[in-house]
Parts: sequence; structure tokens; C-alpha cells
Amino acid sequence: MTIRHKSFASDNNSGAHAEVVQAIAAANVGDAAAYGDDQWTAAAAEQLTAAFGASGAFFVFSGTAANVLGISLLLRPYEAVICAESSHLHVDECGAAERVLGCKLLTVATPDGKLTPELIGPRLAGRGDEHRVQPRVVEIAQVTEVGTCYSLAELRRLRDFCDSAGLCLFMDGARLANAAAYLECDLADLAADVDVLTFGGTKNGAVAGEAVIVMRDGLIADVRFLRKQQMQLGSKMRFISAQFTALLEDKLWLRSAQHANAMARRLADAVADVPCVTLCYPVQSNAVFASLTPDHVTTLQRDWSFSSSNTTESIVRWMTAFDTSEEDVDAFSDAIRATAPVGAAR
Amino acid sequence: MTIRHKSFASDNNSGAHAEVVQAIAAANVGDAAAYGDDQWTAAAAEQLTAAFGASGAFFVFSGTAANVLGISLLLRPYEAVICAESSHLHVDECGAAERVLGCKLLTVATPDGKLTPELIGPRLAGRGDEHRVQPRVVEIAQVTEVGTCYSLAELRRLRDFCDSAGLCLFMDGARLANAAAYLECDLADLAADVDVLTFGGTKNGAVAGEAVIVMRDGLIADVRFLRKQQMQLGSKMRFISAQFTALLEDKLWLRSAQHANAMARRLADAVADVPCVTLCYPVQSNAVFASLTPDHVTTLQRDWSFSSSNTTESIVRWMTAFDTSEEDVDAFSDAIRATAPVGAAR
Amino acid sequence: MTIRHKSFASDNNSGAHAEVVQAIAAANVGDAAAYGDDQWTAAAAEQLTAAFGASGAFFVFSGTAANVLGISLLLRPYEAVICAESSHLHVDECGAAERVLGCKLLTVATPDGKLTPELIGPRLAGRGDEHRVQPRVVEIAQVTEVGTCYSLAELRRLRDFCDSAGLCLFMDGARLANAAAYLECDLADLAADVDVLTFGGTKNGAVAGEAVIVMRDGLIADVRFLRKQQMQLGSKMRFISAQFTALLEDKLWLRSAQHANAMARRLADAVADVPCVTLCYPVQSNAVFASLTPDHVTTLQRDWSFSSSNTTESIVRWMTAFDTSEEDVDAFSDAIRATAPVGAAR
Amino acid sequence: MTIRHKSFASDNNSGAHAEVVQAIAAANVGDAAAYGDDQWTAAAAEQLTAAFGASGAFFVFSGTAANVLGISLLLRPYEAVICAESSHLHVDECGAAERVLGCKLLTVATPDGKLTPELIGPRLAGRGDEHRVQPRVVEIAQVTEVGTCYSLAELRRLRDFCDSAGLCLFMDGARLANAAAYLECDLADLAADVDVLTFGGTKNGAVAGEAVIVMRDGLIADVRFLRKQQMQLGSKMRFISAQFTALLEDKLWLRSAQHANAMARRLADAVADVPCVTLCYPVQSNAVFASLTPDHVTTLQRDWSFSSSNTTESIVRWMTAFDTSEEDVDAFSDAIRATAPVGAAR
Repeated sequence: MTIRHKSFASDNNSGAHAEVVQAIAAANVGDAAAYGDDQWTAAAAEQLTAAFGASGAFFVFSGTAANVLGISLLLRPYEAVICAESSHLHVDECGAAERVLGCKLLTVATPDGKLTPELIGPRLAGRGDEHRVQPRVVEIAQVTEVGTCYSLAELRRLRDFCDSAGLCLFMDGARLANAAAYLECDLADLAADVDVLTFGGTKNGAVAGEAVIVMRDGLIADVRFLRKQQMQLGSKMRFISAQFTALLEDKLWLRSAQHANAMARRLADAVADVPCVTLCYPVQSNAVFASLTPDHVTTLQRDWSFSSSNTTESIVRWMTAFDTSEEDVDAFSDAIRATAPVGAAR
Repeated sequence: MTIRHKSFASDNNSGAHAEVVQAIAAANVGDAAAYGDDQWTAAAAEQLTAAFGASGAFFVFSGTAANVLGISLLLRPYEAVICAESSHLHVDECGAAERVLGCKLLTVATPDGKLTPELIGPRLAGRGDEHRVQPRVVEIAQVTEVGTCYSLAELRRLRDFCDSAGLCLFMDGARLANAAAYLECDLADLAADVDVLTFGGTKNGAVAGEAVIVMRDGLIADVRFLRKQQMQLGSKMRFISAQFTALLEDKLWLRSAQHANAMARRLADAVADVPCVTLCYPVQSNAVFASLTPDHVTTLQRDWSFSSSNTTESIVRWMTAFDTSEEDVDAFSDAIRATAPVGAAR
Repeated sequence: MTIRHKSFASDNNSGAHAEVVQAIAAANVGDAAAYGDDQWTAAAAEQLTAAFGASGAFFVFSGTAANVLGISLLLRPYEAVICAESSHLHVDECGAAERVLGCKLLTVATPDGKLTPELIGPRLAGRGDEHRVQPRVVEIAQVTEVGTCYSLAELRRLRDFCDSAGLCLFMDGARLANAAAYLECDLADLAADVDVLTFGGTKNGAVAGEAVIVMRDGLIADVRFLRKQQMQLGSKMRFISAQFTALLEDKLWLRSAQHANAMARRLADAVADVPCVTLCYPVQSNAVFASLTPDHVTTLQRDWSFSSSNTTESIVRWMTAFDTSEEDVDAFSDAIRATAPVGAAR
Repeated sequence: MTIRHKSFASDNNSGAHAEVVQAIAAANVGDAAAYGDDQWTAAAAEQLTAAFGASGAFFVFSGTAANVLGISLLLRPYEAVICAESSHLHVDECGAAERVLGCKLLTVATPDGKLTPELIGPRLAGRGDEHRVQPRVVEIAQVTEVGTCYSLAELRRLRDFCDSAGLCLFMDGARLANAAAYLECDLADLAADVDVLTFGGTKNGAVAGEAVIVMRDGLIADVRFLRKQQMQLGSKMRFISAQFTALLEDKLWLRSAQHANAMARRLADAVADVPCVTLCYPVQSNAVFASLTPDHVTTLQRDWSFSSSNTTESIVRWMTAFDTSEEDVDAFSDAIRATAPVGAAR
């Protein structure tokens, strides 16, 4: 598949940040103990633990794995996860949670990808009834799958609800950096109200690697065993860890996310008045969702790479990344405008 | 953990081959479609498919994952895997097969890590009996966990047995390169008699990455879904694939394995006449297993890094790697000799 | 919990039909081979196979188990089940399918508990996409969980849709007898369009026991192993089988279901004009769902046993059974009328 | 399969005790709340709880299910079960533990079906090593699969070992009644040193039904949910429970077991001096294991029903039951003697 222009399909289409690749090369010096018993891993885990105010940080290979491992710390076999119908966990992980954890996901339709106490409440019916799975974990994504962010107040409110309802709170942070950039807060602020979260590297300039951040001491003991059993223990771990140290160096993770967010904002602003292009959600990260006419989508996709909804052809997702330039955005927004239906009223 | 000398603990303690790291950097050019729909992955998969005479090649993150994914192609829920008691699958994967596949491993004690028809036969009792799991896959490691290799004739004999007994044959090739080097044969020769095998990158100079090689067309359709569900689909796949292209370039994989094997041979030869050091198995790869006195082990481990058996303190494993030098071996063998019990009869 | 009147809570609250208990006693004569290799089991399985025009019939202990075993015959690990949001499989089996089969259930909201091609269609999005579970089985209940029945034409239409879409059709027949009674058709008619179904004994007068009916020869080989692995192989199987022979004798199953259905019809008719009592669904089996005022429900439940919805207090379910008498129904409908809100408009 | 004489194949070949069948009929009186919320279940559970000095008692359908449910109370996902190589759990449950619990069974060869601290010890290697499953439960069968019993002192010693090693102790009591009869002790004595055990009904005169006895309060909360998820919740539970009340009435369970044991003793004594018949294990329950010549086995099995080892043809198992008569035993022992090789030396 040839990509003629900068891809707006996914932040995964980008390469890695040069500093990350350099860090891999720099870690390639002689021997190191395998399976994470090395100095790079110790350093990166310590840095993350400090940045999040966490109990521990553990590296895995992929975002799906980070979600599954993180949730597995919180769940007994008959317990269930409440998540948004649009969640990556439910939609895009090929049933990994059901297969590996054997748990049920109780999905909730949301207007904007975000769960609220009001949306969660009805899913708690049947507690104590042995015929029903017992809800135990609320899973949220920060940034959500539609590019929106939970405010710190919304997180706090979810936490209070979870506390009162005997629930745990898990956060899929594949794009947590973008949330921190948008909310202008620390990683520790984002993590303060959850039990376990993930911190994505791959979508923010890493080659491969995600971190599972554990916020409660009591959950630490199981992690290493579950990680190995879930096939996520890297033998030459230093090459994963070193990427995170690079991302944390001078907050490269934040600078990259700020840039990606700015590019999404720039794109959204540029197309706001294009006929028959309607933004679907507030732009709060590096994603722009818009409604276009099907013909418009077809025309644009001849030259540009981006996703359109499987079920509703006219909803598109435009992602920016650390390496999306202003020129890329401007060329793309020009193309959107140039190919827009003329004189059409939708 | 500081390592003062070259580690003989594991080929995982080595860094990556410089050419592999360069290949990662070289792949970091602009955008590429995610999840393996990129040119690097297409090229590496094609190269591997050709080299093995296979139906397809698929990349995953770790050796444990490669084993689980490969076996999952062959097994129905009530079917079982026959494997050596010493197999990595059984001993060192924290029960991943049981957890992810839900299958039973039927273990067989072996003198040298190798299964034979005679050893497998008794495990077939109970076929057709609904109270028993039904043996379906024979799992072998090439190189075995004790460093021995199956000859091509032995593989053929296992294949014939499997055919006659309605069994599939799966090969854990985490160190397949070392077997090819020892047996002086092609990868296709090693693969000819199995249904699915793995081809290890990490232990042979990669940063991270293993390949699952599928030898039968009928098994291909499931792989991509199972890989994703088993949390082994890399988003920026090109950085895994590019490593394999580097390993295949001018048979870097073979040269590295030949060197590692030669270093093991050199070590074995050098210590053959050291008092109270007895080689346990024929040296057919990059591993030397030896029996030492417990005191000798303790003394040596003050300065040198290597594994000793958990259950029988005096059995040690010395691994060499692509980056083990003759000087490393000589210094180590000198140390073994210098610290050996004097005048002792064991 | 004391039950003062005939329970309308569930057909499970009834005891067993006297003929079923007598059949158990009659089977208690001397020795018989265990695990189903006995004459009672052979006879009952043969009778069921003939009645359904099936490839085979297999006994298990519970309805949940029958569903899980039946579906397990049709599903590969990454494949999913499409079912109604209201399905017993999804709501009332404590996640057994997810735990034992590791599969995802893709739920569909329905107006009347029934799936249609139009409702199923949108759930097929994402086929061929490795990030998504792949829909493979459509699960329907006949009678549905809200007491409605699929007509034979509706079943045929579902079958055609499944064929065209590469899907299998599984039918939860916990109350299949009631459907046959309502539709006035043979068991073979009900089964003709599905791949696997269950035939419930317990809700229709048995002590304990359900049958899994397999309609395709190619699915038979796995059943016995999966049944044992799923912990559903009875050792003294004759005592399960004999119950089914009793149910099949002179179509006791049908007579019982006809009676239960008639009692539900009688109840529905009797309350049709009670103020503030609104029937929710057409009465097509032994269940009557109605909407009542919350106060009315509370008052009635002081003396009468029946279920009210966990989420919407004012929806009630009234079940009749083989042993519900006209007097029971009349007393209950009198009570409903007597306690109804006076002069209220809802 | 016609059985001409009393079967010595399994205590499962017997029918049910007449009092058990009568209890089922007696429980068939009007309505009762489903799923165990009935007076029969309350009574039987209370009786069992008292008899065992337990925290709770829960009914399931089969022995395999009782084992899996019981063990599931004690195990986290990466933890393993240590059991005898000959254990029913490992050999005869078609991998239910691996499938449903996802756990590894670490098997130990034993001379007499019994585990000891000395035999368990080596299986604890690798604790704390994330590559290894972590042993957590020791599973024993009382009576063992070869008919032997643990003495109370042996149980106490295992308990002390488990306590010192951080292990739980689970007991498969499918034939616990026979152990109590042999050891002349109370059920509470047998249960005192374990965490969870099962109490078999089916092999001791029940139609179908086993009990899971939980000895620690902290384990109770999960049971009901896990039982349902594991497809073991009977809807008309009273018909299971009533069987146990019948078995407990005037210690029918004990009288039946005493009789069965006496019949095994009688058989063993009668054949002790038959040429070429060698008892393999001490006779401590209702099982007699013997070594015969293959020809002798073949001849005997023409007329008599019993098991012979799949792997070693000449080891036979003769089981007695509550309904085995002295005449049955005498006729069988006469037949054994009459068909024995004449003048043969083995």
C-alpha cells in the first residue's frame, strides 16, 4: 500500500521518534541481564513510577496486552468489566479479554465515548444474583476512542462513584500523553483516581512498547507472573525500557503530544467552514472525527489515507501524530475543501 | 546486577546485532501502514516463506507467544500436546499454554531433551476415551532445551510416526538457527517434516521478534485473528519485520549461529579434561551443560554469570552467543580450570 | 422461603412430573454401564434423534451447560456469537460462555426477544478485520426469554440469512416444548433450520436434564469429549436418560407444554381488562409479561411469588407450568384484579 | 452392553440406593424456590456443614465438577496444582481443570497414589520465578485412585507441610465415605486438615450429586457465582439435596461404604492365594487392584465386567459397591480361581 501523502489514518502509521531509535541503539552495549533485570528497565520503571505517583510500572509489547494485563489485576473469574460500546477493549482487540481473562464486557452506549456514573448505574443491576456476572471494573479510555478527554473533575466523580459502588477504575492510556497535553496536567493528576492504567508509547513515537502503571501496592505481587503468562515478558527488555526513558527525557512524550494535538486543532479549524463537513466531537486530542458525504470520502481517499466508519460510511477519523507537519495539515485541509460538494446542503 | 565478564547465562543477555539495530533505524522513514500491511513486513514474510518452503510466516513479539500461537493452529479444545518434561513450553512459560489455549500438556521424561516414537507411544493411551484429553500435537524443540539437535533422520521418523498416529508435529525453533548451523542444512530441511514451527530472532541477535512459520495452507486463515487475540499483533510491525530482513541478509542468522556454536564447542573442548567437570549432553549448539561440584559452581558464580539447575545445584548451563568472543571463552575456561577442585575424585 | 400459593415465578419452581419420577425409580434395576453406555441412554438418544431428524442427541445436567456445549461445537476461538441483549445466554448464565468458551457475545437489542436478519446485519461489520472477533453463530431462543415464538417462516428466513452470510444457527430450546405446542408443529420442524439446538427437560417436568440435539453429522465427533471437559458427563446416566424417555412417552412433553401454555393464555385473558395492567408481549408460550404499577407489584408479591424486572420495577413475569391448575390461575387473576389501583389512569 | 453378573467395573455401575430414590419422590411435593433456595437444600447443606465442621456445603452435578469448583476457590490464574500422576483430576477429567481454570497440573509419580511432603517438595522449585507457574494447591484423593487411604496422621503431616510451604490442601472425596469407613473416623476428622474437599454421593448410592465442602469462611463468598459459571447450578436443586439428606439419615452413607469395603476385603481375601493373582496395593476401601496374567484377564472378562489398565494389560481393578452381595463376591472369586493359570509360574 503506497501512501502518497502524510497519513491521517492512525498515529501508528508514523515511524518512531528519532530519539527513541537512538535510545535503542544506545542501549545496545554489551551484556545485560534478561527479562527486565537490567539497569535500563530499573531506570525507566522508576521514572514512570515517580511521574505517576504509582506503586509500580511494567512494560509490555502492545496496547491490547496492556489493557488485558491491567484488567487482569483487578478481576476474579466471575467478575465483569463495564466499558463503552465504542471502547477499543470491546471493539478492536479481537476478544482478547474474553479469551485470556474469560470475563464478560458489559457495554454501554455513550454519546461521546465517555462513561459517567449515570451511564454505569444501570449496568449494576443483578449484583448478588449468582446468575449474573458481577460488575467489578469500570474501564475508560483517556483519550477516548472518539478523541475526547475526561476532565479531572469527571475522573474524580467516576472515582467517587466507583468507591461508593465497590468498583475499580481502569484507564486505557494508549493516548494518555495527548490527554495530558490537552488538559495541561501532570501524569500523576490523570492517574490519581484510577487503580491501574496504561501509558502508551507506540502511538506517541515509540517503536513498540506500552507501560502498565499500577497505583496500589496490593496489586503488584501478581503482575510479573501474569505478564509472563500473558506472553508479554520481553527477554531483551532493555530495548523496550530504553524507549520510555527517551520519551521521558525532557518530556519528549509531552512535546510530541502537544504537537500532535495542535495539528488536529489546526485541521479542525481549517475545515470548520467547509460545506458538508461537520465535526462530530469536540477536538480534545490528536483526532478529528467528521461527517462527510460518502462521495466526498471516496474522492478524498483516492489521494489521502484515513479511516472511515465501517458501519456508517460518512463518518471519518483523521489522526495526527508527532511527525505531522503544518504543511501536511494545510495540504490535507486544502484537499478536503477542494473536493467538497459544491452548493450542497446536507 | 553488574556483569563483570561476558555472560554465559543466556543468549538473551547479549545485545542485538549491529546490523539489526541499523535495520530498525533504516525502516524509520516516513509513514507505513500499521499492523503489518507494510512493505517491510511483506518482504520479510516472503523471504521467510521462501527460505522455509512454507505457506506463510507471521511475526510475534516473544518466543512464548510464538509457541502458543503456533500450537493454537493445531488444537481443538479437548486435545493435548505431548512434550518433553524439560520443554520450555512446559517449564518456562508460566502456564501460558494452559491459560490461553486451555489445553493439557502431556509430559514425557527424556534422556536428552528429545522425543522419540518410543517415548511418545505410551502417551497415546486413552485415545477415544472421553474421560481423557486426546493427544494431537507433538511438540519438540530444535535445538532442545539441553542443547541437543534432532537429526534430519530423527525428524523424518517422528513425522512418519505422527502421520501413522494421527498427530501433528510442532517445532519450537527459538534456536533453530543453531540447529541449522550444527546440522549444516537448510531451514527448509528442518521444516520439511513439521506442520508449524517457530524461528527465533531474539536469541540470535534481534532486539525482539519471533516468526511463526506455517507449513500447511489450510492453517493460514486463522493465524491473523489468533495472533491479534493472543495480543501479538504489533502496530508498527515494520520494526519487527525489518529485523528479520537484516537477519536474512547474507545469512547473518547462520553466520551468527555458526559462531555461537563454535564458541560452545571451544568451551566444551577446553574444559573436557578439567577435573570434576563432566559434560552432560553432546554439544550440538550454543549450549554446554556440565556437572560440577556445588562448591565449584559457587566459586565460579562470584565472577561469572551462568545458570545452575534449581533442583540439582551442580548442573550448570553455559550459553554462548553471536557476540561471544574466543577471548571470552578462553578467559572463562581458564577460570573454570583454575577454580576446579584439586585432586578431588567425584 | 414459604410459597403460600402456586408459584408463578418460574416453571422451575414446580416439582417433577410424577411419570418422570417413576421412570427414575423404574431405571433403578441392577447394574448398568456408566457414562451413558447403557440401554436407557441408547433408547432415549435414539428417540430424540428420530423425533428431531437429528444426527445425535446428548444429555447434560443444566440449560446453561446445554447452551455452552452446543455453541462450543460451532465456534473457533476468535469467533463470536450474535445474540439478543435479553438472551439467557448473555444475561443469566454468569458469563459461562465467556469463561468456558472464551468467546465474545455480540448483543443486539430487540423489541420482542427475537432476532431478524435486519437486526443481525449490522453486527457483521468488521468481518475479515483481524482486530475484530468474527461473528459465526447466531443464537436464538425458542421460546424467547420474553415468551414469544419464532414462526417456522421466521426460522427459515434466519436460516437463509445465515447461509448467505456464512453463519451457523443455534437454538436455545429450554422451552422448546412450549414453542411446539404454540406453533402446533413437530420437533423436527423446529429443528430443521438450525445446526444445533437444545431440548429442555427441567422446565417441562423433569427432575434435571437437558438434551443437546446435533443436526449435522460433522459435528458429532467432538461432542462426547467436550461434554466431559465441560463437566456434564453423568456417571449414572440412565437416570437422566430415563427422564427423557418418560417425557417422550405418549408425548408427555407436548401435553405438559400445551397445558402450561393454556394456563398462560387463561391468565392473560383474565387480566386483559384489569386497570393498569398492560401485557407487554404477545402470549405465545407459558409466560405472561405485564406492566403494572410498582405499588401493585409490591402488594401482589406479599402473597404471590413471581419475578419483577430488576431494572424496571413495574415489568413482571408470570410463568405457568405443567402443574399449574385452572384454579391456581383463577385465584391469581382474581388477586391481580382485586389489588389493582382503583380509578387510576396510567 | 449386557452385564451377566454383578459388575466389578465401577461403583458407578450400581443403581441408586432405594432410600435415595424414595427421597427424590418424597421431595416432589408442590412448589419450591429454584436454584437451591428451598428447604431441602437448606437442610442438607446444614447437615453436611455440621457433619464436617465446615463453613459451607454446596451441591453440584458431578465429581469432575466438584473438583474443578473446589480448586477454583483456591487458585489465582498463574498458580498451579500439585497432584498425583494417577489422580482422577489429571487422568480422567478430559482436561477440565486446564480448560475451565486455565491452570497447570504439576504431576508427581507415587508408589501408592498418595502424596507426601517428600514427593511434593521437588515440585516447589521455581517459586518466585516469573517463568514458572507457582504451586498453590496440593490435591489429594481420599480414597486414592488406587484404593488406598491417607491416615489421619498422614493428613496432618501434609497439612503441616502445606502450612509451612504456603500451600492449600484440596481433597477429592468422591469415595470419602469409604475412607471414613476404613479409618473408622468422622467426616470432620477427615476434613479437619484441608481447605476444601468434596463429598461424593454418586459412587455411594446417589442418583447424581456431589457436595463441595468449604472449610474456611473466607472462601464462601465466591462459591455460588463460580458454581453457576461452571454450569453446576441445578434449578430444581431440591432433587439433588434430598439425596444427601437420605444418605445422611442414620448414616446410610457410612453403612453403604462399610458394606462395600467389606466386600472388597472379602474378595481380596478370597483370591489371595490364587496362583498368578497378586494384589497390588493394600485393600483399604472398596477397590481391589491385582496383577493377573493377560490371558487370565481375557478369560475372566468374557463373563465378568471389570477394568484393566490401558497401558499395562495385566493390572485389573475390581470395585465393589453398596449393592455388591457376598454371593456376588464369592461367585466372582470362584471364577477368578477357576480360570487361573494352572501350574504357572509368573
